[in-house]
Amino acid sequence: VTVLPANAIADAAVAELRRFGVDTSAIVRAPGRLGIYYLESGANQRPSRIVYDRDHSAMALAKPGDIAWKPVLEGATTLSPTWFHISGITPALSSSAAALALEAVGQARQSGLTVSCDLNYRKNLWKWGKTAREVMPELVKSTDVLIANEEDVQAALGIEADVDVQSGQLDRRQYEALAGRVLAAYPNLRAIAITLRESFSASHNGWSACLLDRQKFLASRRYEITHIVDRVGAGDCFAAGLIYSMLTGLDAQQALDFAVAASCLKHSIPGDFSRVSVADVNALLQEGGSGRVQR
Amino acid sequence: VTVLPANAIADAAVAELRRFGVDTSAIVRAPGRLGIYYLESGANQRPSRIVYDRDHSAMALAKPGDIAWKPVLEGATTLSPTWFHISGITPALSSSAAALALEAVGQARQSGLTVSCDLNYRKNLWKWGKTAREVMPELVKSTDVLIANEEDVQAALGIEADVDVQSGQLDRRQYEALAGRVLAAYPNLRAIAITLRESFSASHNGWSACLLDRQKFLASRRYEITHIVDRVGAGDCFAAGLIYSMLTGLDAQQALDFAVAASCLKHSIPGDFSRVSVADVNALLQEGGSGRVQR
Amino acid sequence: VTVLPANAIADAAVAELRRFGVDTSAIVRAPGRLGIYYLESGANQRPSRIVYDRDHSAMALAKPGDIAWKPVLEGATTLSPTWFHISGITPALSSSAAALALEAVGQARQSGLTVSCDLNYRKNLWKWGKTAREVMPELVKSTDVLIANEEDVQAALGIEADVDVQSGQLDRRQYEALAGRVLAAYPNLRAIAITLRESFSASHNGWSACLLDRQKFLASRRYEITHIVDRVGAGDCFAAGLIYSMLTGLDAQQALDFAVAASCLKHSIPGDFSRVSVADVNALLQEGGSGRVQR
Amino acid sequence: VTVLPANAIADAAVAELRRFGVDTSAIVRAPGRLGIYYLESGANQRPSRIVYDRDHSAMALAKPGDIAWKPVLEGATTLSPTWFHISGITPALSSSAAALALEAVGQARQSGLTVSCDLNYRKNLWKWGKTAREVMPELVKSTDVLIANEEDVQAALGIEADVDVQSGQLDRRQYEALAGRVLAAYPNLRAIAITLRESFSASHNGWSACLLDRQKFLASRRYEITHIVDRVGAGDCFAAGLIYSMLTGLDAQQALDFAVAASCLKHSIPGDFSRVSVADVNALLQEGGSGRVQR
Amino acid sequence: VTVLPANAIADAAVAELRRFGVDTSAIVRAPGRLGIYYLESGANQRPSRIVYDRDHSAMALAKPGDIAWKPVLEGATTLSPTWFHISGITPALSSSAAALALEAVGQARQSGLTVSCDLNYRKNLWKWGKTAREVMPELVKSTDVLIANEEDVQAALGIEADVDVQSGQLDRRQYEALAGRVLAAYPNLRAIAITLRESFSASHNGWSACLLDRQKFLASRRYEITHIVDRVGAGDCFAAGLIYSMLTGLDAQQALDFAVAASCLKHSIPGDFSRVSVADVNALLQEGGSGRVQR
Amino acid sequence: VTVLPANAIADAAVAELRRFGVDTSAIVRAPGRLGIYYLESGANQRPSRIVYDRDHSAMALAKPGDIAWKPVLEGATTLSPTWFHISGITPALSSSAAALALEAVGQARQSGLTVSCDLNYRKNLWKWGKTAREVMPELVKSTDVLIANEEDVQAALGIEADVDVQSGQLDRRQYEALAGRVLAAYPNLRAIAITLRESFSASHNGWSACLLDRQKFLASRRYEITHIVDRVGAGDCFAAGLIYSMLTGLDAQQALDFAVAASCLKHSIPGDFSRVSVADVNALLQEGGSGRVQR
Repeated sequence: VTVLPANAIADAAVAELRRFGVDTSAIVRAPGRLGIYYLESGANQRPSRIVYDRDHSAMALAKPGDIAWKPVLEGATTLSPTWFHISGITPALSSSAAALALEAVGQARQSGLTVSCDLNYRKNLWKWGKTAREVMPELVKSTDVLIANEEDVQAALGIEADVDVQSGQLDRRQYEALAGRVLAAYPNLRAIAITLRESFSASHNGWSACLLDRQKFLASRRYEITHIVDRVGAGDCFAAGLIYSMLTGLDAQQALDFAVAASCLKHSIPGDFSRVSVADVNALLQEGGSGRVQR
Repeated sequence: VTVLPANAIADAAVAELRRFGVDTSAIVRAPGRLGIYYLESGANQRPSRIVYDRDHSAMALAKPGDIAWKPVLEGATTLSPTWFHISGITPALSSSAAALALEAVGQARQSGLTVSCDLNYRKNLWKWGKTAREVMPELVKSTDVLIANEEDVQAALGIEADVDVQSGQLDRRQYEALAGRVLAAYPNLRAIAITLRESFSASHNGWSACLLDRQKFLASRRYEITHIVDRVGAGDCFAAGLIYSMLTGLDAQQALDFAVAASCLKHSIPGDFSRVSVADVNALLQEGGSGRVQR
Repeated sequence: VTVLPANAIADAAVAELRRFGVDTSAIVRAPGRLGIYYLESGANQRPSRIVYDRDHSAMALAKPGDIAWKPVLEGATTLSPTWFHISGITPALSSSAAALALEAVGQARQSGLTVSCDLNYRKNLWKWGKTAREVMPELVKSTDVLIANEEDVQAALGIEADVDVQSGQLDRRQYEALAGRVLAAYPNLRAIAITLRESFSASHNGWSACLLDRQKFLASRRYEITHIVDRVGAGDCFAAGLIYSMLTGLDAQQALDFAVAASCLKHSIPGDFSRVSVADVNALLQEGGSGRVQR
Repeated sequence: VTVLPANAIADAAVAELRRFGVDTSAIVRAPGRLGIYYLESGANQRPSRIVYDRDHSAMALAKPGDIAWKPVLEGATTLSPTWFHISGITPALSSSAAALALEAVGQARQSGLTVSCDLNYRKNLWKWGKTAREVMPELVKSTDVLIANEEDVQAALGIEADVDVQSGQLDRRQYEALAGRVLAAYPNLRAIAITLRESFSASHNGWSACLLDRQKFLASRRYEITHIVDRVGAGDCFAAGLIYSMLTGLDAQQALDFAVAASCLKHSIPGDFSRVSVADVNALLQEGGSGRVQR
Repeated sequence: VTVLPANAIADAAVAELRRFGVDTSAIVRAPGRLGIYYLESGANQRPSRIVYDRDHSAMALAKPGDIAWKPVLEGATTLSPTWFHISGITPALSSSAAALALEAVGQARQSGLTVSCDLNYRKNLWKWGKTAREVMPELVKSTDVLIANEEDVQAALGIEADVDVQSGQLDRRQYEALAGRVLAAYPNLRAIAITLRESFSASHNGWSACLLDRQKFLASRRYEITHIVDRVGAGDCFAAGLIYSMLTGLDAQQALDFAVAASCLKHSIPGDFSRVSVADVNALLQEGGSGRVQR
Repeated sequence: VTVLPANAIADAAVAELRRFGVDTSAIVRAPGRLGIYYLESGANQRPSRIVYDRDHSAMALAKPGDIAWKPVLEGATTLSPTWFHISGITPALSSSAAALALEAVGQARQSGLTVSCDLNYRKNLWKWGKTAREVMPELVKSTDVLIANEEDVQAALGIEADVDVQSGQLDRRQYEALAGRVLAAYPNLRAIAITLRESFSASHNGWSACLLDRQKFLASRRYEITHIVDRVGAGDCFAAGLIYSMLTGLDAQQALDFAVAASCLKHSIPGDFSRVSVADVNALLQEGGSGRVQR
């Protein structure tokens, strides 16, 4: 469910989604641009860099009322959804998009869907007047499952962590405490998952995650990703893996491990989309990533 | 010496061989396809994956009698060969190809050639009815120099090794014992060379080998290959390096070291073919692989 | 200031320089070729290799008198230079180019410019009759700031270092002693900067530098460059960073650190040219190279 | 509705179909290869050349009973089809595929669907024992709308045409007579459409078509295609355009013109798939192909 | 002189201009995007298509006062201009850009520069409220040399032509009459040049131009461009050729012929920029375009 | 038989020759560069342009005595040649190469080989002191079969033709007269073949040839090549086709037609090498070049 312009470039984007089996029947076409971004791929000490060009996109111009949430969320179309996921990038785009995002999660909850939200804080996007801290808490109040990293939690929710992002040293208790503070502040949350990226260089990261639900704190296996091909989209892949796991009935530890393994594999794939299958993720979980040729 | 279809795609393959100075005069053209495979290049925790499409190839359809071994092996053509090498992939393709492989090594031995065989076990290929263990021992009985890894020895010859492939920890004595068991089982063998791949990830492997002949057990230098470009073809490159060394009179330790260095370099070259020269291999042997720019 | 042929290929080279904001108004066109080189990109144990094809280039044919130094160096054109830099590659090309190089530094000093020289010893280039040791000392006598590595100092100046290039182990005192011997031999030198490359493989180097001026010996931060994209041009980038820093008034330690950081980043960029900005270098100096995505 | 192997290559093919909005829910996965072909792109006097590698594909191995026609054709799945189209390439692949093709059209007719068939004669494919003339007439007996060129009619149905293919000179009456003979031979046919390709060179063709139904003979506009980009897929595009037009209620002349215009545009698009929209085709029909930039 | 955002993408655009020797010192950086467009390259009957994405660009947001015209136009910078050229695309972008365009030509005239204007009517750009006919006449009143095609004159100035654009048949008298009506309506104009594109297909155009000054009507040679590589930028190339010719003192006929030849050659070059030299244009003028290899 | 430097670039060139089945065993390695050229591909009115960089190549430095002609020409190596072909490009390179060329044809004749020469006049190459007219007549005196175009004959032999190259209008009698004058001037010549290129644009040429032997004047079929892909190498392809035809015993008309058809096809193939087979040429001769897809 998104808002795109009615032109050939957006048509191509929709076709690409269809390729991956995404149901595109609820996409709304409206005036505005197709937002883009420019990516400079980093290596070693040189970071990847993104120049956003998303202002005045059809999505940024979208506002409450533009999407007919009832039929979309309640299965009057070919969709019969039980889960609604939203990224913190949407409210970052514009005032109207932020209002639309709030409308969306409200409607989703009302329709009985589970709501997840990835905070996805991007400091270069929040330019429209309000800060993330003024908007995101409202959104999180309608969320069931929150996804974030330590920087997101601080920047978007104002909940401080005693975590040293740069060193990447992971203190399990610090993360447990941070997650606990979030669940305490938002009683509606069923769980929070926090991704842990240790950035040794643009080419070499550590990757893991932890999850706190109302019962226990869980930590995932940690992956050493020594030859990053493309890390863009890994966070989205984590969210997708977590939602998929929860929807298919895995327990919390399994879901966390699946999400981390799925997003670990994304780092080896060029482009925005992960192209691995569920079987590929399970193979990593079972065989451990030694990378022996499959033949 | 192979069997290819008579079409433009096979013509291109033959031309590519000619580029590398391979004598293609004894290649037979016959009905069937050109076998192909699809390769997905791995990175980090994601393994490379191969989808074979070799069924019904001209080579898979080939059978005893299709190749006029006598003139080929005894120098009636422009070839005047003294060594015959065969890969375990040929008998894996089909019943007739397996029979042809047996015919080939028999004829080669009869013609006084040294015969080497790389077991090259591929579980996705052995689909035609018999298992590798039912076929390969017969082939090895006509072999002088055997090339294998620890998995090949178990899967193709049924000789168990107390080797932990996944950990990649190399216990010299275990390999010596394994090699000893093979030489004991096949008195015809002059020597067995075993390649040792430690797979830390699809991008980072350790690479070395050992060799047992009737006199002593030798271990090669070990290379840390930290940025694999393409490992496909490294095993064939090892075999080629070993044969080249033995044909040019190097002693066993020198031959083993040359073969390991040559195949180590293959990991840095995209595509199936190694493009390094003998001088390049010797430079690695003497200067140690620090990778300083040559200018 | 260089000498190029008057053809479309040189036109394209000049346009490429212009792209980077280089003033090309003093380039002389003259008979001869455009020198080229072929680069085979190394990886792991396989070194990069360069085949030079620079003989008979317009630059190699250039001789004293071909360039009107006075207007060029004294600002009669749009240039108003205060610094003159020369590479040891120029005198390596031919006898006349060596004479032109000597003329150049002499004129530059006479015109009151600061002169820097990067020794840039290339053994495959010094083929025209004299050795680097016979020519470079004369050039260095007109130099204010010398740039070199330990191999350059030995090969071009004949000053021996007790430095083990291959191991790459850096003994601070050895480098201080070596630099001291150079400053002692050439009283005209204000400072010498020595780059320190530890070559673990073609894909993984350590990179740092030291500087001795008439007051103190300084060492830079050391960078671990684990995924080299292209190291060609890193040395030139170091020289450029050093000159830029000195021209803009940074102190010696700052200048050394800036030059090392700038050239460290070059290793992540394909092609001959560095494409980072001053801000990118400063970001590395301040944030330390963890490679987090900038967005 | 097709039969594909269950591997990653077929998965990619299915995804590509999905991109274009094709419903892939009725595709059957079964043993066998994915058929491929090699294309050498022609130009001027040099023709394009195709090397087929379709033997033993999952489709060639498919046989009656492999596809559950009833649910597929009668809307038990998400499909609710009213038209069934088949290409003469399917029965050319193998004896079992020919039997499956006959089963398919029989079932389609029984289910009340309109059946169209493109004869698509390919002399390099009919190798399995029977000739096209022995098989295709049976298929055409269950067909409502036949699509062909003059060569197809002769080779697949044995109905001779007094048409000179090479000269490409189009004699309207000859084509009317030929079409008439086909309709006379197959009383079940509602209409036959014949594409007319005048091949001046591999880069320059004339393109038009004619259609005979039970009432009248219609000729389309003729397009001069002077700079062919890729003609592969143009015939399929004609069939698709014709079916689309008939399904959406255009009259016979409009349908013929739409199909010719749509397939004319395919010649300007690289790859197998046409990427133009219905609006693009209508623009050509209305504005005449002067190719002025749309901006 | 333009307005661009202060980001890395605009930096790259400026560097590309510098490559061609364009003085970029007067470019202003200001908030807003970098405008882009998407181009689908046509062929045969399929037209090229452009999707504009220029809204909210820094240039569209620019307004009177944003550019310090006095120093720019009067040589206080390194520029010492005598000619000011503007395209009708600028006022099409936004109300403020239109006002800025009017300010620019007014200032240019006041500063004693010759002003030229290419009407460049683009119907998909004029979306901000006023039509071209409401704005462009004001701009043309400050213009000395007008460049247009017959569609521009009608759409932007409201002066009707009895010219059939689609047929491309060129009636010399019609164009003379049209040009005469423009000069009559705008007494300030010294001359009008009209480009004549005959569009047979997206791959094949005729290309010529005519010019009316206060003394006579001139027609250029006509070029048959049978294999268009890329026509984008040909109009700008015509304007550039005309201005260059007039600035270097060619007479009207020579200037017209030079401009047509220069822009004819652009059709053979991929990308927005012409890469031919003055010598290349003169060679076409003298040798006639037979395309014999120069070697 | 050529002279190349002993470096990796020349090794690659030799390997490429081997790919095409060329016997490379008589290639001599010697000091010097590998000559190169830069090609700008033309289109429409813009001609292709070549910048030669062949000075000081190993071939240009080669001199009489560098090649052991006796074993090469008399079959002491694996070669057993009966025909020797030389291009006019060799003597154009340098004084010593010209002397070597004369030595070569002298030795070839003495060894009883048929000698053919393609005049291949290139005005940008003859820079070493003597003109083509001073050198080529001597070479032609040892030639049996001469290949040329009308410009070559004038520039290299000084025999004037009343032929208008630019118009490309072919007057059969003029060419017969020109060929007659050449045969009269060089009684040693058995035949002269003249290629006739009508250059309408860089994209569209007419292509044919004529041949005069001591008995009759023959003209070939003429090909209209409307979409030139790459014309570089077409002349060499003509020579190769003529020699092949004569060696295989075709009569003069057949040989001429084969050579023209073979070189016509080269215009459709990118790169220097023709990749068509003898069967492809014969197909063009028999089927006429309508370019229908072969499938």
